[in-house]
Amino acid sequence: MTWATLGELAELVAARLVGSAETVVSSALPLQDAGPDSITIVDRALHLDRFNASPAVAGVATQVLKDCAKPLLIVPSIHDAFPKIIERLRPIQYQLSTATGRGVSSTASVHPSASVGCGTTILQGCSVAENVTIGSNCVLHANVHVMEGCSLGDGCTLYPNTTLYPGTIVGQRVLMHASVTIGAFGFGYRLQDGQHVRTSQLGWVEIGDDVEIGVGTTVDRGTYGPTRIGTGTKIDNQVQIGHNCHIGRHNLICAQVGIAGSSSTGDYVVLAGQVGVADHIRIQDRVQVAGQSGVMQDLPADAVVLGTPARPNKRALQEISLISRLPDMRQDLRGLQRELEELKQRLAAHSNSRYEAA
Amino acid sequence: MTWATLGELAELVAARLVGSAETVVSSALPLQDAGPDSITIVDRALHLDRFNASPAVAGVATQVLKDCAKPLLIVPSIHDAFPKIIERLRPIQYQLSTATGRGVSSTASVHPSASVGCGTTILQGCSVAENVTIGSNCVLHANVHVMEGCSLGDGCTLYPNTTLYPGTIVGQRVLMHASVTIGAFGFGYRLQDGQHVRTSQLGWVEIGDDVEIGVGTTVDRGTYGPTRIGTGTKIDNQVQIGHNCHIGRHNLICAQVGIAGSSSTGDYVVLAGQVGVADHIRIQDRVQVAGQSGVMQDLPADAVVLGTPARPNKRALQEISLISRLPDMRQDLRGLQRELEELKQRLAAHSNSRYEAA
Amino acid sequence: MTWATLGELAELVAARLVGSAETVVSSALPLQDAGPDSITIVDRALHLDRFNASPAVAGVATQVLKDCAKPLLIVPSIHDAFPKIIERLRPIQYQLSTATGRGVSSTASVHPSASVGCGTTILQGCSVAENVTIGSNCVLHANVHVMEGCSLGDGCTLYPNTTLYPGTIVGQRVLMHASVTIGAFGFGYRLQDGQHVRTSQLGWVEIGDDVEIGVGTTVDRGTYGPTRIGTGTKIDNQVQIGHNCHIGRHNLICAQVGIAGSSSTGDYVVLAGQVGVADHIRIQDRVQVAGQSGVMQDLPADAVVLGTPARPNKRALQEISLISRLPDMRQDLRGLQRELEELKQRLAAHSNSRYEAA
Repeated sequence: MTWATLGELAELVAARLVGSAETVVSSALPLQDAGPDSITIVDRALHLDRFNASPAVAGVATQVLKDCAKPLLIVPSIHDAFPKIIERLRPIQYQLSTATGRGVSSTASVHPSASVGCGTTILQGCSVAENVTIGSNCVLHANVHVMEGCSLGDGCTLYPNTTLYPGTIVGQRVLMHASVTIGAFGFGYRLQDGQHVRTSQLGWVEIGDDVEIGVGTTVDRGTYGPTRIGTGTKIDNQVQIGHNCHIGRHNLICAQVGIAGSSSTGDYVVLAGQVGVADHIRIQDRVQVAGQSGVMQDLPADAVVLGTPARPNKRALQEISLISRLPDMRQDLRGLQRELEELKQRLAAHSNSRYEAA
Repeated sequence: MTWATLGELAELVAARLVGSAETVVSSALPLQDAGPDSITIVDRALHLDRFNASPAVAGVATQVLKDCAKPLLIVPSIHDAFPKIIERLRPIQYQLSTATGRGVSSTASVHPSASVGCGTTILQGCSVAENVTIGSNCVLHANVHVMEGCSLGDGCTLYPNTTLYPGTIVGQRVLMHASVTIGAFGFGYRLQDGQHVRTSQLGWVEIGDDVEIGVGTTVDRGTYGPTRIGTGTKIDNQVQIGHNCHIGRHNLICAQVGIAGSSSTGDYVVLAGQVGVADHIRIQDRVQVAGQSGVMQDLPADAVVLGTPARPNKRALQEISLISRLPDMRQDLRGLQRELEELKQRLAAHSNSRYEAA
Repeated sequence: MTWATLGELAELVAARLVGSAETVVSSALPLQDAGPDSITIVDRALHLDRFNASPAVAGVATQVLKDCAKPLLIVPSIHDAFPKIIERLRPIQYQLSTATGRGVSSTASVHPSASVGCGTTILQGCSVAENVTIGSNCVLHANVHVMEGCSLGDGCTLYPNTTLYPGTIVGQRVLMHASVTIGAFGFGYRLQDGQHVRTSQLGWVEIGDDVEIGVGTTVDRGTYGPTRIGTGTKIDNQVQIGHNCHIGRHNLICAQVGIAGSSSTGDYVVLAGQVGVADHIRIQDRVQVAGQSGVMQDLPADAVVLGTPARPNKRALQEISLISRLPDMRQDLRGLQRELEELKQRLAAHSNSRYEAA
């Protein structure tokens, strides 16, 4: 077991130590997982009670916390410091890219016409087809299939079971997690004599530099031209991007989002989990769409939207709040109906009495 | 073709036979699939008409059914009896784990530092990396990839194309279906100079005993500590569980559910299909969430919720019902406005007449 | 680089040429991707401004367009003509099925009891288990796993990493994209002594002729009988179809749809993206369900529905429109309450004045 004193850790991360330098820790874990040998994170004063009640023996914080019962390392950035502490205490952390530099596995199949850059590793069971170009210092984990005519830039990492259909173009430093599939057919059919006949699949997919793509995500090839993913865009797990879409740069597309064919996004767009975007929609720069929303019309730059159909956040929240008051509204409505009826009767009686009086 | 008389089948499942013991059947199929050689299921008196109208020649039921035109086997539990009948009539049913005991395929790659228990089968194309531990009597179907430092308990079954990222810890008797991916990176980035920079991926995934995980499901590794799936929890196909989540014991998580980072569930929680759970949400024991709901705040034990945002079932149903009455409410509102206007005019006219009278 | 004159292309696609036959193009791309060497598509008069403003040098249209500044090829069907032009200009288009006729890879494993038709290609890393039958002229791309007792008709194409569980029956000319999984266990459990115990998995999956299935889609095996996908049905990426479902013929099921167990659809049903269908639902012929809807009750033939719960389109749109007017309705309600109050006071004052007058 690896352990360290708080004094050592304070020195390691250039922290101000509040409490005993002799305190020993042997694990670094978040609050919910911390044990009696742990140093943990106290990232908000709000969490102080939970920290005091937890078995953790020490914490990392960005400020001295009043009423804190345990030693603290005070640092400018927890997320700079804590990883260093973890690496000190878990030295055998498996590097997530240790595969680099192992060359081409004897069980991989690389077509003679393919070009593979230096320093690139191709692991067990991979296939690299005709006229493929792969840059230098890439890692193709086990069973990655790169079909005819694809090209990958330098420094790409493809996790197991990823498939690139023919003609896919990938930039530099692109990361694809397990079971990603790029370039399968778009979902386009025309009805002919009662049969759905597949439309053309003559396009391809083009992925910019520094894109990251989560597990099981699918990006379909264009009909005649490219489906594009812009530079710096990050895509989470199980996302579906339809044919002919043009996704902009530096988007964040969260898990289980679905974007139908021929839609586009600008730069720095954020789509939260399970969002659906209809086909032929244009979403401008910096739009933010809340989870599970359904985007059914074009969205202007900087829009913040929510709901199905997606509408401005403030408006949608007001509507949600009013829906929750519908029972009251209905009661008010009935109350009004009753009162109005009474009033009419009073008025009628009143008129009668006048006539009688007259 | 295999066949049996009802007399034989009655004996096989210890049933009370109503009708001729000499009736011959050669298939056992549900009502919707039954043919003229079939024994089928009549699990509710409700289905009697469909049974009588179907080509099936006999049924299995839990009680004698009045007006039933065909022979019946009466048993205490259809779901105990019917599988036995199927096994009698389809003797070549492929055992779904026939692979056990075949040893390690010559096309699998097992690192010398890995430890593999006795009776464990590792099929074609699998890779088992450095410092992996696999228990006894496991089956790794074709092309399963177990990356560095993972450990699996005894009696686990992993179907084809499943990938465990480095450091994944799996309990005993865990079942993972095809294309499951455990331990890929969490979707965490911070914006720095206009680029999304990936946050730490120093955690891992820990899966309890008797967990079952459906096809294509993804569970992301924690940031610093574990993402946990509790003992006995069953997860359906295409589910996404984010980084740092702690899923409790004996949950049922249906297909296409997405749970964002750092959320937790208690024990015996049920999330129906396509539910979304926001990040940092706490769902207590025995909560039930209806299909497609979006959970946006913490839920107390035994809550039964529905809708987006998820709210108590009864309340949500009332709101849905009131939304469907909105056209009526609007009409009532307009009616009231008209009547009030009339009333005001009458009152004005009335006052005038008084003044005139005066 | 390959190039052609408009004169040549007009001849190739039997087009009427409006403009100079000498114009040279070297790429054929959609409007959004067209460059200064491109011929593009002007499929609606609506797009004429974009076409004139684009760098494209020529267009393909179905009619002469007034005010069009560039040469046009006029054809009866753009989608017949444009693919031919692409094929002329990109002659090295990778045929998406070039694999045909390559035989069985030495790294594939085919069980001696399996039967493989002539002209069938089985690529690297595939496994074909006991008693499997595969027709003629099929292509099994890399790492396809066909488990015990499956049968495939003629002319099927299975893309990489697809898995067929034991007993799956596939018709002719079926196309499955990468990472499809057919026949995994249904999500059925019964609670027994606090544990979820898996119900029977004795059924199978049966897929009709000419079915196409998108990347990552999952179809679960029936409990006792078949889960069925009807002839001619097309299924997009990341769709989940539960155990015992009977999907009709010529359906279009878009990406990320989930259909719970034992539901059925008629023929020519369309389910748009992210639709959810509850269990035991019957959807009749030609029903159309809008994106993200949740179907919670049976739907009659020709229904067009929307929303969760899914209800007739017209009704749902009216409700959505009324929800957006809820703020107004609430204001109207309050206005009415105020006016009624005033009226009551006026009436009271009025009565008093009468009494005083009296």
